[in-house]
Order: sequence, then C-alpha cells, then structure tokens
Amino acid sequence: MGGPLRAMSKADVMIRVGINGYGTIGKRVADAVAAQDDMQIVGVTKTSPSFGCDLAVRKGYPLFCTFDDAERIAAFGQAGYECHGGLSDMLSVCDVVIDCSPGKVGAQNLEIYRQSGVKSIFQGGEKHALTGLSYTSSANHAENLGADCTRVVSCNTTGLSRTLVPLQEHCLEAGGISVNCVMIRRAADPGDSGKGPINAIKPVLKVPSHHGPDVMTVRNDIDITSLAVAVPTTIMHVHAITVTLPQGHGLSTESILDMWKNTPRVLIMNGANTRITSTAEVMELARDIGRTWGDLHEIFVWEDGVSLQGDTLYYFQAIHQESDVIPENVDAIRALMDSESDWKASAAKTDSAIARFNGL
Amino acid sequence: MGGPLRAMSKADVMIRVGINGYGTIGKRVADAVAAQDDMQIVGVTKTSPSFGCDLAVRKGYPLFCTFDDAERIAAFGQAGYECHGGLSDMLSVCDVVIDCSPGKVGAQNLEIYRQSGVKSIFQGGEKHALTGLSYTSSANHAENLGADCTRVVSCNTTGLSRTLVPLQEHCLEAGGISVNCVMIRRAADPGDSGKGPINAIKPVLKVPSHHGPDVMTVRNDIDITSLAVAVPTTIMHVHAITVTLPQGHGLSTESILDMWKNTPRVLIMNGANTRITSTAEVMELARDIGRTWGDLHEIFVWEDGVSLQGDTLYYFQAIHQESDVIPENVDAIRALMDSESDWKASAAKTDSAIARFNGL
Amino acid sequence: MGGPLRAMSKADVMIRVGINGYGTIGKRVADAVAAQDDMQIVGVTKTSPSFGCDLAVRKGYPLFCTFDDAERIAAFGQAGYECHGGLSDMLSVCDVVIDCSPGKVGAQNLEIYRQSGVKSIFQGGEKHALTGLSYTSSANHAENLGADCTRVVSCNTTGLSRTLVPLQEHCLEAGGISVNCVMIRRAADPGDSGKGPINAIKPVLKVPSHHGPDVMTVRNDIDITSLAVAVPTTIMHVHAITVTLPQGHGLSTESILDMWKNTPRVLIMNGANTRITSTAEVMELARDIGRTWGDLHEIFVWEDGVSLQGDTLYYFQAIHQESDVIPENVDAIRALMDSESDWKASAAKTDSAIARFNGL
Amino acid sequence: MGGPLRAMSKADVMIRVGINGYGTIGKRVADAVAAQDDMQIVGVTKTSPSFGCDLAVRKGYPLFCTFDDAERIAAFGQAGYECHGGLSDMLSVCDVVIDCSPGKVGAQNLEIYRQSGVKSIFQGGEKHALTGLSYTSSANHAENLGADCTRVVSCNTTGLSRTLVPLQEHCLEAGGISVNCVMIRRAADPGDSGKGPINAIKPVLKVPSHHGPDVMTVRNDIDITSLAVAVPTTIMHVHAITVTLPQGHGLSTESILDMWKNTPRVLIMNGANTRITSTAEVMELARDIGRTWGDLHEIFVWEDGVSLQGDTLYYFQAIHQESDVIPENVDAIRALMDSESDWKASAAKTDSAIARFNGL
Repeated sequence: MGGPLRAMSKADVMIRVGINGYGTIGKRVADAVAAQDDMQIVGVTKTSPSFGCDLAVRKGYPLFCTFDDAERIAAFGQAGYECHGGLSDMLSVCDVVIDCSPGKVGAQNLEIYRQSGVKSIFQGGEKHALTGLSYTSSANHAENLGADCTRVVSCNTTGLSRTLVPLQEHCLEAGGISVNCVMIRRAADPGDSGKGPINAIKPVLKVPSHHGPDVMTVRNDIDITSLAVAVPTTIMHVHAITVTLPQGHGLSTESILDMWKNTPRVLIMNGANTRITSTAEVMELARDIGRTWGDLHEIFVWEDGVSLQGDTLYYFQAIHQESDVIPENVDAIRALMDSESDWKASAAKTDSAIARFNGL
Repeated sequence: MGGPLRAMSKADVMIRVGINGYGTIGKRVADAVAAQDDMQIVGVTKTSPSFGCDLAVRKGYPLFCTFDDAERIAAFGQAGYECHGGLSDMLSVCDVVIDCSPGKVGAQNLEIYRQSGVKSIFQGGEKHALTGLSYTSSANHAENLGADCTRVVSCNTTGLSRTLVPLQEHCLEAGGISVNCVMIRRAADPGDSGKGPINAIKPVLKVPSHHGPDVMTVRNDIDITSLAVAVPTTIMHVHAITVTLPQGHGLSTESILDMWKNTPRVLIMNGANTRITSTAEVMELARDIGRTWGDLHEIFVWEDGVSLQGDTLYYFQAIHQESDVIPENVDAIRALMDSESDWKASAAKTDSAIARFNGL
Repeated sequence: MGGPLRAMSKADVMIRVGINGYGTIGKRVADAVAAQDDMQIVGVTKTSPSFGCDLAVRKGYPLFCTFDDAERIAAFGQAGYECHGGLSDMLSVCDVVIDCSPGKVGAQNLEIYRQSGVKSIFQGGEKHALTGLSYTSSANHAENLGADCTRVVSCNTTGLSRTLVPLQEHCLEAGGISVNCVMIRRAADPGDSGKGPINAIKPVLKVPSHHGPDVMTVRNDIDITSLAVAVPTTIMHVHAITVTLPQGHGLSTESILDMWKNTPRVLIMNGANTRITSTAEVMELARDIGRTWGDLHEIFVWEDGVSLQGDTLYYFQAIHQESDVIPENVDAIRALMDSESDWKASAAKTDSAIARFNGL
Repeated sequence: MGGPLRAMSKADVMIRVGINGYGTIGKRVADAVAAQDDMQIVGVTKTSPSFGCDLAVRKGYPLFCTFDDAERIAAFGQAGYECHGGLSDMLSVCDVVIDCSPGKVGAQNLEIYRQSGVKSIFQGGEKHALTGLSYTSSANHAENLGADCTRVVSCNTTGLSRTLVPLQEHCLEAGGISVNCVMIRRAADPGDSGKGPINAIKPVLKVPSHHGPDVMTVRNDIDITSLAVAVPTTIMHVHAITVTLPQGHGLSTESILDMWKNTPRVLIMNGANTRITSTAEVMELARDIGRTWGDLHEIFVWEDGVSLQGDTLYYFQAIHQESDVIPENVDAIRALMDSESDWKASAAKTDSAIARFNGL
C-alpha cells in the first residue's frame, strides 16, 4: 500500500496517516496531508457508501469502513466501491490517525487507537479532558512533541491563538494581556439547508462562552473571556476583540500590525483600499486566489479595524470555520511524530506544500 | 385647533407638540404623544403627498408641509389631502417640536425653531454638539429640565443607559463601572428591501464605535467602549456586554436582576423557560402582547444570560431599533416644559398611557 | 358563561365558539370571532400552562385544557391560571369548535366533536378527505350552509381562490380558465428561529405541488397546476401566476383590475407609485395601518404586475401566511350555523367588525 | 508575445483571445480559454490598478488598460503592475475579444472592435439588437459560424436553452413545445455585501420578464413566457418550469431524463438519494468535486422533480449565475473563428480541457 500522491521511493520514510471520518474536516485534512512530502494518506473511513466515497476514490485515497463489521464492509462493494476493510484494518497500516468523526464517540475511539498502537489527533468538538493535551501550532507545538494523542482546538480557538499568542509573548514580561472577545458566529455551514435562523440574532446564553477560555488549553497564561451570538450567515465567524495590554508594553498600532504580518496564517488587508468590507468579500478573495473549496486557512484581520488607544487594543478578525484548523492538523502530525520540533519550520513546510497543491 | 384625541376642555393646559418629519420615528412618537393626557399633537409634516399622509389623516393629525413653499403646500391639496400650511405655520401653534427629519438638516432646523420661539427635541442621528445637551430618561432628566433644546440619544445608546445607569448609580461610591460592549446590529429595517448584506457579517471598522462613548453624553462618568458589526437581519440589535464592577460592589447576579426588574422599560425573561431563544421570539412576544407595529419599547434582557463571575458581569440585551426611544421622547417633552421633574413619575405616566392606547 | 367581549343581553342569540388550540392561528381566530356581534368565544384550549395562557387571560377568554385529564387540568391552577376544565367541558358549552390543533390529530378530534354534538371547522393542515367538505368564502359558502363540519383551506389555496374564483365565474360560459402557479414560500414563520435555509432555494420536489389542485376542493371546475419552492424569508409567500383565458373572454387588464378591486379581501396597489416593491414594504404597510400582529388578511396584488397579453394573464400576489385565513374562519362559522347565506354579506360583516376591533 | 499557459510551438496556430473587462465573468472566461489547446489569452484589461491585477499577473495574463490614455496606463506602473498598453494595443494582437465590460458601453466598444478588425463576443447584459446575433452552444452554433460578432445570452437564458432545445428538437415535427417558466433569482452575488433584500421576496413587475422570450434570440421557434422574482440568497437561480408537449410527442419521464443525461452541461441527480435538497447542497457538490471558485458550469436538474403528467412536463433546474455561460464563451470563439462547426465536438473539447485544468 502506498500514499496515492506519493512516490514509492519515499514511502518507507513517510508518516502514514489515516482519516477516521471523511466529511467536512476529514476531506480537507486528507488533501492537506497528501500535499506534504513527508506524509501520506493510507486510508479514509466512511460509515456507509455515499457521495463522499466517489470523492475519495477520485483522489486515490484507499477507502475503509468506519466499523469492523463484515456486512457493513460488504455494502461498499455492493454499491460499487472498493473497500479495503474496517477501521482496524486501516489502523494496522497507520502511524497516526486523524479523528474527524462527528460527536460524542471520542472516548471510545481513543481506546481503539491506543489498543492499535496508533497515535491520534482529535478535533475541537471533543473536550480537552479527553486527551489532556491540546494543540495550536503557534501556542504549544513543543509541548506536543512525541505525545501519543492530542486535540486540535476548534476553529474559533485556533483563530484566537493566531493573533493573541504573539501579543502575549511580547507582553509576558510586562505582565501579560487581558482579552475580551465577542464571537459573531455563522449559524449554519454553506452546505446545510436545514438550520436557521433566517432572520434573527441568537445569543449563546451560557456565559461566558467556552471559546475564549478554551484558548487556555493551549496557552494557560492568557487571561480571556468571551461571549457568543449566532447570526443568519453561512460563511465565516467574526471576532470583535478588545485586549488590555500591560503597562510598559511598548507597542503601537503599527508595530502590532507588523507583528501579525510576520505571523504565519494571519492575513492583514485594508478594508477601505481593497473594498473588502465584509465576510462576503473575504470569501470572494479566497475564491479569487484559487483555494480549493474557496477555503481560507488564514485568519483575516482588517488593517483599518486595528487600533491601539492607550493600553486598549481593538480589532476584528474573520475565521473560515470550515478550514482554519486544516494546516494545524498537519503540524500536529509532525509534533506527535516528533519529526519537526520548530513550529515555524513545520508551518512553512505545511503551507508551501498546500500552496503548490493549489497551483499557486 | 385641537389635538385630535384630546378633549377641548383640557386643551388650554396641554402641551402642544408638532412632529417635523412623519416617518418611521415620527409616526410612532405622534401616537405616543397623542396617548398622553397632558400633551397633544397639533401637527405633523410631510415633504410631499404620499402614503404617510393617509396615516396622519386617519389618525386625525393636522398635516403641514415641511417647507414654507406655496407650490409644495398646494401639491397636497391637489393630491386630495388637506394641508394646514408650511413648517412655520405649524411652529406658530407649537410649544415644542420633535425633529424626526432624516439626516443632516439639524443645524438649519434648530435655527428655525429658535427663531419661532419653539423648544425642540432632536433624535440620535444628530450629534451631541448640535444641542450641547442630550437626553435619556433614566440618566439625566433633571439636567434637561427647562432646557430649550435637547437630543434623545440613539436606540443603542438609550438601550445601554437603561441597564447601565442603575448599575453605575449603585457602584458610584465604590469607584464606578467599566463597560465593554459589542453591538450586533440589524443591517436594514424590516420595511427596507434595498439594503444588504444577504449573507455576510460586516464590521464597523471605525474603532471604537461611537455608540458606547455616546452614553457619556447623558452620563459622563461611565467608562465605556464599544465595537459594532452589522448582520443580515432586520428585526433587532443585540448587545453583548461585559461590565467590570468596582471592588466592594456588594452585588450578586440575583440582586442585579432585581435591580433591573425594578427599572422602567427593562424586560427580564428567562430564555430556557419561555423558549425565547433569539430576537425572532422576542419580536413575536411583542406581537402577542398587542403592541402597535409589533414594537417593543422595553430593552429585553435574557435572565439566563446574566451572570456575575467575580467582579465581571456578563449579559445580553436586545434592542428594538425602531421604537425604544419613543417613550424617551415623551419624557423629554416634560423635561423641556418643566412639567414633571421626577423621571420615574414621568416614565410611569408615559408608559401607562401608551399601554391604555394599546388596549392593555 | 358569557363571551368576554359581548354584552349579556345578546348572549342568548349569539353563536358560541370554542377554539381547540390557542396558537398562531387560534389566537388570531379568537380575536376575529370576539370582534363579531353575532358570536362569542366561550373557551380556548392549551395543552399545558405557558405564555399563551397569559394572552388568553388578558383577553378574557375562558381557558380549558386540551385533554380531559384531571392531573393536566390541575397543572394550570398550580401555575396560577384559572382552568375551566377539559376539552369536553368546553365542548359542552359550544355550538361550533374551531380546530387549530397542530398536525395529525384531526380524525380523532372530529370523532370527539361529533360525539359532543358540536359542529367543527378544521384548518388547511388537514386533508379534504377528513371532512369531505372544504371552504373558502368566495368559492363555496353556499355549499357549506348547515354542514356539520368543514375545512378552511390553507393560506395558499385561500389566496388563490380570492383572485381566481371571480375570473372563473366571469369565464365560465366561455369555457373556463386554466391556471399555472409557482409558489415562492417563506421557509419559516417570523417567530421560528430554528428552521432554515439561511442562504438557499429549496424546491418542493413532489410535482405538481398540492396547493394548486387543492383549489379544486372548493371550486372543482378550475383547471390548475402548481410548483413550489421555499426561500430564506419569514414574512410572506408570493405567487407568480399565469392564467390562460378562454377565447371570447371579453376581459382587459383594466377590467380584471376593476373586478378584483370589487372583490372582498383583495388589495390592489401600484408598486411604482407606492414604492411597495417587495413583501418587506407590504408588511410595513400592514403595520402602518395598525393591524394587530401586523397581519394582512387581504391578498396583495401589485397593480403594475398585472398584464393581460392576448389570452394570457400574468400577475403576482403576496399572501400573509399567518393571517389570510382568519376572516374565512369567521365566515365558515356563519355557513355551518346557517346564519347568513350570502357570502358577500358575511364577508362585509366580518371585515367591518375586525376593522372596528383594530380601531380603524 | 505568447499565451501564458501555451507551448510556443503551437502559438502560430492558436486563436488569440483578449478579455476586455477582467471581472466576475472575465476572470472565469480567461481561465477557461487558457485551458484550451487551440486558443490563448493574449491580454486582459482593467480600468485601474486593483486587486484583480494581482490575479492576472499570478495567472500570467498580460495586463492592459481599458482605455488608450497614457496617464491611466502609467498608473498601473506606479502601482507596481506591468501594463502592456491600452485597449488598442491589446486589440492589435487579438483575433477575437470577449467583452465582459459592465453595463451600457457595448455599442461604443463594438465600434472600436470593428475598426480594429477584431471579432467580438458580448455577454447577456447587452441586448440582442447590438449584435443582431446571439449564441448558445446547443441552440445555434451553426448560425454563428464565421460571424464577426455575437452575444452569449444571459445565465438564465443559457440555462433554459440547455434543457429546452433538445425537447424542442424532439417535438418539432409534432408541433413544438410551449413553455412557462418562473425564475427565482438570487438577489446579489456572493461577493456583494451591499445589496438586499435581507428578508423579502421581490417580484419583477415587468411581465412577462425578458428571460424567457430571450431564448427566442437563439431559437426562435420556442414558444415561451416567463416571470421572475428576486429572493434573499446569493448562490443560484432556480427555474420552476412547466412545458406543454405537443400531441404525439412520444416521450416519457424516463426518456426525457435519458435525453438530458446525454446533453452536454446538464447534470441530473436525485435529491432524495443524494440529500441534495436545495441550492446549498448543489453548491457544496461543486466545491467537493474541486471546481475552481466552486463554479458549476452545468445546469443542475433534480431527477425526482421531473415529472411528465399527460402532456405536461414539470421540472426544476438550478443555475449557477456566475459560471454557466463560461464554456459557452469558449464555444462561441470557435464558432466565430469557424474552427469547429460541430457544436457537440466543440463542447466536448471545451469541457474536457476545463476538467483537466481543474485537476479532474
């Protein structure tokens, strides 16, 4: 067995990756992994034959059944798809598995992965307590080196880490930052026609919301609270953020912008100059630059919405909820396999491979 | 001339009110004024004959032309509407005029009102600098007593004052509150089919936004900042608010809820119990209780979204952008005419008259 | 027991009406019935104590439990609401019951009503087969005189009848009309924040849709087919209609407009002149004219969207899904009680009483 | 000069294509042309330096200024973009120009193209009268062979042609088809955050709408009328279509589906089986199969929404307004250059080249 997009001659040194759950996140992680030259996709699972199987076949990813159940496995063949076996079969050829299964089966899956001797990476839908370790490239790559399992935090928490971690690192000696974030969330994904609301704003009444404090699972010295509302849009979350900097921070609006411009996966653009005034134009930008699925892995920050006034920093950032965690999953693989200890080196490798894959 | 809904025998002691601009706000203020027993509508203006004239005629409000222009005045007659003259004619029978004219003509109008010797009340679309004095019932009624002109602050600022002023009064001795507010704004009014966005979130890139600091025009000791985003809904704004209370504030979640339950024009309901989970159900409530136009003059606060954790208070409130300032305009009339010096007495009088008008 | 809004002296001759299911439709029918001088509300049912009970109490409608279950009945008292008994208790004082219960219990309910000797009126959610008789004021009032039970057809079918029946009556001798209708439906009601889609068009794949053919349950000589799509709006349905008139119809665009202007519950307005360009402005009109809940009982037809070209008539109409059937329910009561045999007389009586109730 | 993506050895025989207006349509046509092996992009124009220039540069398309104005041309250089001259300079190296300029300058442009001796293709925003000739691949490729200029009809009209032309050809001897179409249109494109409505349905009051009759500019024997409404979505139009087939048509639901499955650029899928229930899932499919910009060149027809009942055929189709005309532009180039007289051969060539470009 070999990774579909990899040369055989490298197969012996490549990290073998399986995707358990080839859906919205799984299909994106698979492509991002397949684009790297140090890892390969050895399998993806589906619960039953469906359209997603066509996609896997077309991409050349070996197809497995989510269950070790002969009848369910046979159903794939009856529907015309070559199925290479059940989950155990996939795990037997994996070094690491990316768990992209929907809801509430994390604990059970983790046990299976452990018994198979396969490292595992969960997504932000699972709680930190499952793995006891979480991951964001910029926050705690080092802490994850060689670990058996970890959890890539949610799209919102990943987005917060991208812009807050460099601020915190700069301000740490002066006493650290204090953050207040309101998340204006898309109520449904673009391919979901069932969920509303059509014409309303829906507050998340559990306050504070979990998203802000979740940052502390990857960077426990950031003081942060958050509130969230859902709104009738399908395409991005927006964060409205207020940061209180410590006395003697030594920063200016310009130096903060420079800091972020040098941060991987943060995109700074000027709304007035580019006429990118809303998430609609941000997503159009992603389509224009040719990203697969119109994804935007970067966090988008409006340059003219960043303002440091006294010790208070205000800014807005937009988060592509379907894709910002994708490169983080690739970096997390290298962390667990201990194949690259420098997060910026891993991020650069990840991102340039994805860019080539996108024909850029 | 007599107010359309008032008995003649009281006319000599009633405050005579004109509405300059019978549109979204003007038509609501007119009804609220007409419902009171100490004031009457002596006229409303329109720029030209249109559907709004039918409404005025049906309600019995004398119709005037916004301009002192014989030709424009005559146009009303030609369209079948009795027009009682131009703006000057209306002002000659007014004690106070409510300026509900759209955009950018405030300075010019104020000069006309002054020359006519008529007191005037502007809306939140005008800047504080125009009048040098702003108004919210709970914040600074006393400061407005006997003034010649004032400005009722915007729907957002009025909403913030409702919940923040009692908190600040309680905390003043302990050092006062510090407020961070994010406003999630409806992008267009329900009767406006031209404006978008249809599927996007649009940040207001000027940071901080003016809404928070505008609270200081009615209560200058509140420390407040704000950010704003527009979202694809037509029916209400939502505020996501974080308040830092001073040490020794002596408050609890329960005592804050009690405080607000005793505050005029604040409505506290439990989202889980009532299934009012979004602004959609809040507006349905307003329809159910029979409010004209489905208006909600009160600020709606979700009881189960209020939480004091340490010295940090979190809460959400929903603002009906078309109507929360209406009772404030009535109270402001009494302030300027110096006919009721106690804001709570005025608020009680205003609100019970409106309730009777709504058949409640 | 007496109707809450009726003088006692008339009680003996008034039709006694119960509402089984005091929800979206039930609360509106109750008010419309209470406004009439020949009928009274003797009770409304709720399944359990909830916000709707407050509304019933405030309006003075005696409250009953949907079930004859002592425990459930007692629950109302425990929640502070006076409950007058179970469904059977309400039926014992009714002449006719309006069944506004949600989904799928029609057959069971009809049996109960029959055993209680009470006439009954169902809504369009039930199938024609349940009652074997359907109702629209303009289509078949006479056919319903004295019947034991009937079904007021759905909002869409009612709306179609309003404009199509007069056309058909005019064209009957010449051979009758042939109708093609596409219904563009609001996907969720304004108080529903759960249903989507947020950003999509959803065709009703069962073709043709049932709405058009359902017209034939009240007027079986109209040849009609229909298709339907759901779209992300909460406020009205729109029908895009093409009618083929028979040779020798003798009509013109103007004479059709005149016909409809003389038809009860059809409102003709010119979009260009009134700037009513979409359902947003239509609903704003309903609010402006002071309708309770912002309802519009009339079918709204854009005058400038009506065009007869050769034998083909094109027009658009907007339907307020929450309210157009309300006056039809009142007329249906008179039909079943055989108290008014002329539908136009009943409609005039119904509509003027509702108008007075709305303070018009 | 050589096409950016073409081998030099073929340059001498390749059709040289310029794009006047590198915007929503222009950028897509450019990529589709560049993907072909018998044509190349020799230039694209922009009115001024902006983000679109980056895209052109990255793709390797020579950049020109829309105007022959030295100052405007110089502005590109000052902004850091290499500009190869004005429109005339681009035309001097073109065989054919695709006019994708926005609104109302068609007549002026056509004159310029003619004086430059360059063939030209306009888009559906221009009227048929401008060129006197219109184009859809399946309808009238032969009629366009060797023409100097033509107009690719709008996205809606192109979509109608795709499914109606094969029906008409089948039914021609029996007397031809008669079509009634209602277009439910997206109100704004996904990258447009300014336009509404947010919560309304907006009928196009000019009836019948121009879209249906516009089919007759490419196939003048089809009897068709149409109505249109705009709805709050950004992603696709939906057509609800009723076709009356002539007596003796000999078709069945199944044979019509087979006919369309064999028609280029028509995609038939079963909504119930694939859970593609709305335009949201259709667009997700386009993203999943890796189309650039998430485009769908094909017309999507729901298999289970197609039903022939007697002589009446009902169906729904979804149109991707930003992209369905793209392959038509490529075919139109071959028609004007008289390089491929068989439309199906051209379509096959166009589509397979685009598929390869998309990595499929």
